[in-house]
Amino acid sequence: MRYRFEDAVDLTETLENGMPIYPGDPVPSFLPSATLEKNGVNLTKIAMGSHTGTHIDAPMHFIPSGTTIDQILVSAFIGEAVVVDLSQNPIGHGVTGSDLDRSAGQEIQEGGIVLCYTGTSEKWGDQTTNRNFSYLDLDGAKYLVSKKVRAFGIDTLSVERFGHVTPDSHKELLGNGIFIIESLSNKVKLFLGQRILLIALPIKLGGRDGAPCRAIAVPIGLEH
Amino acid sequence: MRYRFEDAVDLTETLENGMPIYPGDPVPSFLPSATLEKNGVNLTKIAMGSHTGTHIDAPMHFIPSGTTIDQILVSAFIGEAVVVDLSQNPIGHGVTGSDLDRSAGQEIQEGGIVLCYTGTSEKWGDQTTNRNFSYLDLDGAKYLVSKKVRAFGIDTLSVERFGHVTPDSHKELLGNGIFIIESLSNKVKLFLGQRILLIALPIKLGGRDGAPCRAIAVPIGLEH
Repeated sequence: MRYRFEDAVDLTETLENGMPIYPGDPVPSFLPSATLEKNGVNLTKIAMGSHTGTHIDAPMHFIPSGTTIDQILVSAFIGEAVVVDLSQNPIGHGVTGSDLDRSAGQEIQEGGIVLCYTGTSEKWGDQTTNRNFSYLDLDGAKYLVSKKVRAFGIDTLSVERFGHVTPDSHKELLGNGIFIIESLSNKVKLFLGQRILLIALPIKLGGRDGAPCRAIAVPIGLEH
Repeated sequence: MRYRFEDAVDLTETLENGMPIYPGDPVPSFLPSATLEKNGVNLTKIAMGSHTGTHIDAPMHFIPSGTTIDQILVSAFIGEAVVVDLSQNPIGHGVTGSDLDRSAGQEIQEGGIVLCYTGTSEKWGDQTTNRNFSYLDLDGAKYLVSKKVRAFGIDTLSVERFGHVTPDSHKELLGNGIFIIESLSNKVKLFLGQRILLIALPIKLGGRDGAPCRAIAVPIGLEH
């Protein structure tokens, strides 16, 4: 078994003007601050929220005195992950513990990473999925805590049902030290039912609640 | 030989208010846009330039119609790197081809990555090193092009001598498809003279000139 870095696949949504965001988040903008024509150099001014695009939630997002994104050891951002297919459910489904157990229970290991493909990511850019997206039910979050996983990723804007009054699924995961990757791209479907090496590196925001990341899948195994 | 992911070392400077920037770049700011106390959630509003902190220069930075940061394949951001010690020179030194050849010529491979420790990073936060930093001489850039490396990294704000009228070293590297990693942290000195697996993943800015990255060193070899 070996990691095929040369075949790595990008699981990250592009950061660009007009991109989908969680309703109420800071509006992202990416504009030239200097150009080759005018200034002899191309530079960009970035404005965005810490949870824009494909990103990682640190415990501080919802937990008082919770771990900040720069306090998570870089080694935690690299690890084998199982990719679970839950796209047979309609968009808007709440993923439960029995969904996860039925689909991948045998593959979910202590200290491992679980990535969930709900199919919501197929509609990235469709405004309706800014509110109507699949999510992780509290029951699903409790299941992952019982399995002692390290991280959970999903191809939707949030692990929480939109409009839910209390952030139960976030708190269940983050309160138990499980970090969360949100807005994975639909490229995760290339690995349904497979094990990959996930590398999801957030930018190093000092003392903050989360950060945009670059997430990639490294296939495991022999060449095709 | 194996990659010791569990011992990965962060080579990234922290993104925070008041951090060093290249003179004239957008002033970075990282401020709460919502807090647990007031809003029930911690969120951060990020403002910064595309070349803030540890970051990658794409060819578009200086080359007309050059490759943009999101066009570089993710597999290019992972690869074995040799770490070259040039800290015997005073800060402000221009690294030449013979410097690189003498220190690591045998180790520099086609398609490989070269990281240069100049010692400038020991003074991260000292305002004098925002202008007085070591850099890559045009001669050094030509040497790297002749070696057909994939990428070059350095522990200074720029590969170019500060105040240089034309961006010769940038253009030599970027014009030959060699991407650049700037502002690596002083943690690179842990690997002087060694070969590591470098993973340097930039955020995915669509159609832009460069981007902040998270850069880590994965040791190669047996356990200690």
